Amino acid sequence: MPPRINAERLWQRLEALATITDPALPYTRRSFSALHADSRAQLKAWFEEAGLTTGLDTAANLIGRRDGREAGLRPLMAGSHSDTVPNGGRFDGIAGVLTALEAAHSLADAGHVLRHPLDVVDFLAEEPSEYGMSCVGSRIQGGRLGRNGLNLTNTEGETLADGIRRMGGDPDRLTEAVRKAGSVAAYVELHIEQGPVLESGGIAVGVVTGIVGITRYAVTVEGRADHAGNTPMDMRQDALTAAASLVLKAEEEAWDLNHTTGFFVGTVGQLVVEPNAANVVPGRVRLTVEFRSSSNAARQSFIASLQQFADEVAAETGVRIAFERLSDAAPAVCSETVRGAIRDACATTGVACIDMASGAGHDAMHVANAGPMGMIFIPCRGGRSHCPEEWVEPKDLAAGAAVLLETVLTLDSRLD
Amino acid sequence: MPPRINAERLWQRLEALATITDPALPYTRRSFSALHADSRAQLKAWFEEAGLTTGLDTAANLIGRRDGREAGLRPLMAGSHSDTVPNGGRFDGIAGVLTALEAAHSLADAGHVLRHPLDVVDFLAEEPSEYGMSCVGSRIQGGRLGRNGLNLTNTEGETLADGIRRMGGDPDRLTEAVRKAGSVAAYVELHIEQGPVLESGGIAVGVVTGIVGITRYAVTVEGRADHAGNTPMDMRQDALTAAASLVLKAEEEAWDLNHTTGFFVGTVGQLVVEPNAANVVPGRVRLTVEFRSSSNAARQSFIASLQQFADEVAAETGVRIAFERLSDAAPAVCSETVRGAIRDACATTGVACIDMASGAGHDAMHVANAGPMGMIFIPCRGGRSHCPEEWVEPKDLAAGAAVLLETVLTLDSRLD
Repeated sequence: MPPRINAERLWQRLEALATITDPALPYTRRSFSALHADSRAQLKAWFEEAGLTTGLDTAANLIGRRDGREAGLRPLMAGSHSDTVPNGGRFDGIAGVLTALEAAHSLADAGHVLRHPLDVVDFLAEEPSEYGMSCVGSRIQGGRLGRNGLNLTNTEGETLADGIRRMGGDPDRLTEAVRKAGSVAAYVELHIEQGPVLESGGIAVGVVTGIVGITRYAVTVEGRADHAGNTPMDMRQDALTAAASLVLKAEEEAWDLNHTTGFFVGTVGQLVVEPNAANVVPGRVRLTVEFRSSSNAARQSFIASLQQFADEVAAETGVRIAFERLSDAAPAVCSETVRGAIRDACATTGVACIDMASGAGHDAMHVANAGPMGMIFIPCRGGRSHCPEEWVEPKDLAAGAAVLLETVLTLDSRLD
Repeated sequence: MPPRINAERLWQRLEALATITDPALPYTRRSFSALHADSRAQLKAWFEEAGLTTGLDTAANLIGRRDGREAGLRPLMAGSHSDTVPNGGRFDGIAGVLTALEAAHSLADAGHVLRHPLDVVDFLAEEPSEYGMSCVGSRIQGGRLGRNGLNLTNTEGETLADGIRRMGGDPDRLTEAVRKAGSVAAYVELHIEQGPVLESGGIAVGVVTGIVGITRYAVTVEGRADHAGNTPMDMRQDALTAAASLVLKAEEEAWDLNHTTGFFVGTVGQLVVEPNAANVVPGRVRLTVEFRSSSNAARQSFIASLQQFADEVAAETGVRIAFERLSDAAPAVCSETVRGAIRDACATTGVACIDMASGAGHDAMHVANAGPMGMIFIPCRGGRSHCPEEWVEPKDLAAGAAVLLETVLTLDSRLD
């Protein structure tokens, strides 16, 4: 009998994990917290129930291995993360860990032994952690922690090194956790879309083409705070009207680049006015502009257009506009081999799929350093995530799990 | 010998009053504070030095009277206020009280007795007070306190009635402070412009044509907070881009109405974004729009245009935009008689003047209920006010005082 996922078991585990939350602020299970240690203990028990050989690597990633039948093959990997943002949801990351576990468990149930070893992974701290770093565990596996990463501190002054040690890792032997380039046969991660595209199209699976590059700038508009009654319109240097024109220009550029490149988003999410009084012409506005695209050229074009426009606004109005780059994360391309396996798995299991870019970062982008990577997106209600209302229909979770299992089987047969 | 102002005495008093400040936050002399009582004691001493019969009315306005020589004539009035905003300046209000005092003192020096009585007034609490009301003293003189004014409380729970009593007034006999319509021959107030027009034009005096009406609305733009990475541009309801277009529309309308009506200002001074995170599409923006004009029709036209535009934006983008009127203060027109006297006084004393609207409220707008009113604006550096850098050149203060004295003499001869 071919392996089949057990949708009921999967959903029950998801509900059980949701109870491990700060009761005052559901659903909150912050990385490095006691609650997170509790959820890790629960996951470890389930991993073992599924017959996986389970333990932590030196980066405190929880890994359960199912051995393969052919000697010398590199492992297949599947997983995601089980930590949440404050006041987050029950699916983001968790769905990826539990469906990978369910795939392994269904293989065990069917007595199906893969050619490759299979590693089910719960990465440490994918969400922005109290140490100011996200994707801690996958970043370490990808060999990307960086020189000073371990010295980052949380608000209590604890270093990330001590945090990792507290979670069961060994910061003195972190290199043992690194998965060298070429050491992984393939990695596949199921995740909720965190956007409205699949739901609104009635589509079960998004085959991720790549994880976008994300660039973020801080922009400061310096005008002059003046009395709103006695400063005529033509004698003002209003920082907010200048900032408003930048907000609209950013939106317009993002629309244009979205049309020409297939996927581009640009957002002014943060904007603060000073002194922010009804009767004072705004003297200063600080805002962030963030833009995401798989195309480095498109991201460069976006910021160049915005800066040129800002120069024109400054020249016309007398305000000064300064740009500071805060971050610039490179895109990660999904492997054509993994994408093909996912598409074929959708066909085999009878669900519709479309290609789509991931506008959000994920553990997968760091694992991409170790081997071919791909992602399976499933729909979530209203595209909402990082909130208690985050929701996936049980049938959609089950369909995604079936596609994940079938993808693992397909990759197992196609890869050496 | 005709009366002449003593510029040195005037400046010395201004400097002396500036020392009565919260030392940690110059220049701060909040109404109803112990510091304000100190400055009142100093003013009272100077009023008496100038030969004025000095005391408080039941609204705790400090009034110094110089008697006239013709029986039965109503008083001329001149004055302003001596309280400041927190971290304010040395001139706003104070210049008006001290130049009125100087005019009276120079009459005494010259032994010049006017036909009319002259009341020099330091109004209580012109700046927004801790009880949430501005222009307390002049509002009471104008008979405009309103039914519940005395029950307003400060953060310590003290009522305005008790505050007035503490400052030496008698809230049980407030009607005695009201100056009935027609009971004042004329009121003239010198004030710093609080704007850049006079300084940039190199003009000594602004003859105020009227105090604008001020209307203020709270606007709430409700969009939908979404993940900034995974929500495509065409599936967003971005509250900030909608708000930005309102900000620019308000600016454009204000420019147009300024051209057609002579003076119109419109300002979005306050704007708050929620949740205000770099990676979240703004879900809600709250902003204030404030607009000022002597023309009620122009103010109505402004808000009608803005609301119509908001309806269009809402229809196009799916956001909801709600307007709530917070306040709507009627304009006050300056008396042609007083304006003519000021213009003639400028000609006599040899200084240049222009007509201009006051975009800010002043005690004069309430005194207008009691008789013809006019205002003299003098330049201030960079148009700055309500800040420690607020500055008036001594020669400009002296010129303004001379114009005020000459205006009083002119009105004394022209009015009965």
